[in-house]
Amino acid sequence: MGRVTERRRTIRIRDGVASARPDTLAAEEPLEIRLAGKPLAVTMRTPGDDFALAAGFLVSEGVIRAADDVRSIAYCAGATTDGVNTYNVVDVSLAPGVAVPDFGLERHVYTTSSCGLCGKTSLDAVRTTARFPIADTPPLRVAPSLLAALPDRLRAAQRVFDRTGGLHAAALFSEEGELLDAREDIGRHNAVDKLIGRALQNGGLPLSRAILMVSGRASFELVQKAVMAGVPMLAAVSAPSSLAVDLAAGSGLTLVGFLRGTTMNVYAGDERIALDGAV
Amino acid sequence: MGRVTERRRTIRIRDGVASARPDTLAAEEPLEIRLAGKPLAVTMRTPGDDFALAAGFLVSEGVIRAADDVRSIAYCAGATTDGVNTYNVVDVSLAPGVAVPDFGLERHVYTTSSCGLCGKTSLDAVRTTARFPIADTPPLRVAPSLLAALPDRLRAAQRVFDRTGGLHAAALFSEEGELLDAREDIGRHNAVDKLIGRALQNGGLPLSRAILMVSGRASFELVQKAVMAGVPMLAAVSAPSSLAVDLAAGSGLTLVGFLRGTTMNVYAGDERIALDGAV
Repeated sequence: MGRVTERRRTIRIRDGVASARPDTLAAEEPLEIRLAGKPLAVTMRTPGDDFALAAGFLVSEGVIRAADDVRSIAYCAGATTDGVNTYNVVDVSLAPGVAVPDFGLERHVYTTSSCGLCGKTSLDAVRTTARFPIADTPPLRVAPSLLAALPDRLRAAQRVFDRTGGLHAAALFSEEGELLDAREDIGRHNAVDKLIGRALQNGGLPLSRAILMVSGRASFELVQKAVMAGVPMLAAVSAPSSLAVDLAAGSGLTLVGFLRGTTMNVYAGDERIALDGAV
Repeated sequence: MGRVTERRRTIRIRDGVASARPDTLAAEEPLEIRLAGKPLAVTMRTPGDDFALAAGFLVSEGVIRAADDVRSIAYCAGATTDGVNTYNVVDVSLAPGVAVPDFGLERHVYTTSSCGLCGKTSLDAVRTTARFPIADTPPLRVAPSLLAALPDRLRAAQRVFDRTGGLHAAALFSEEGELLDAREDIGRHNAVDKLIGRALQNGGLPLSRAILMVSGRASFELVQKAVMAGVPMLAAVSAPSSLAVDLAAGSGLTLVGFLRGTTMNVYAGDERIALDGAV
């Protein structure tokens, strides 16, 4: 975890006056995820929680659904030509009997968002992938006032953000608004994969009573990850994309955007928002 | 260009009071880029300027360097199983004699940021890729006051942003601060690839006297794209990552971050910033 931030010399200019000073930056390094020794994906991430990131990525892609599905996760020693372990290559071995899905290792390298390949639409690709159903029984019912409190709790949980201004955050909250877990990363999708991976490792999947909250925007990719983990509600500080809304609506996910102060937009699944009466 | 934004029904909640209304969202759809008919990459993008995006992506990846290197770019008709043209699959044919680099189509699908594959570090991967040298002769020399004016000009150029709050922007400015081109996309890296692709198509590469300005953060990937296009200066509204700073410093790129009001941080290449005397 020592590489979450790094310091670099910087020249700061304010009103035309320059001064040199060290600045704290968000660390960014590539992580190559291998499956049974074969390269599957490369993601630019903030180092730390790499095994959770790899596990969560495999949940998001429909490869695994339980901690038992994984035999081992390890850094590849000697991954570089000079034999140095960079801690930037992780190999996942699946448990016996866990099938590698048909996106196929013959492709060797797999782009992250499952979409568009072979001309299939993204929505089709997600709909046809094995995943946890969104099964919140009884259905989640959340007051807007509870949602309005989440951004401040997310920010309070961000230890790194204030120092670098460069990290995205994602957190899981209970339906009572209690913070369950929070992760930060240079990539928002990585922060979510780390949350999902830790939930997997702790036996917490599907996340059928959790609210996933993200800083910034709600992209298709984030909705996809929420759906794959069985999360019934995703809330974002900023805007969703059109495809994010369509996937949420088609999957039964509640999608809240522009969650700021006491204001928010509900883009899908409003039956989980307590709109009646006082809030 | 009609798909840059889409409208969806939204429930807006303000201080506990809900009202239904249409909301304008940033369109997001996958684009599969094929090279000579074989899938190379998939990116989630805002539709529009797709040919420029594909061309710029190939410049960023070191495949092409001039408009002449491309024989044709076309949407694949019949890309889906039911034969419908989704306008989400683009095929690029290279001109005779243009070599496909050794990242190899045998991999079929290639993750975007060239990094970490085979255990090579990202910096090595970029350094060993053919690219335009950063060759601003005489060297660019830009006053902080000129840089301070760019964010407002970028925002003024953003026609879509105010409606959706969901799009990243990137623009090219002359060394006098004149706006040369601006693009928006759900993905910042796509906006930059669209700029680079349009410059390629207009015979404007290398961009050896241009300042590239991006909304949000400066990731490794954005610095990589600037370097590949021969851009001498990259300015960002928000924070750079550690790897972005390292690549900029190692490549001779001037990297400015946290460009807000009259304040900014110079992370690399400060010889291009006029720090002496009044600004």
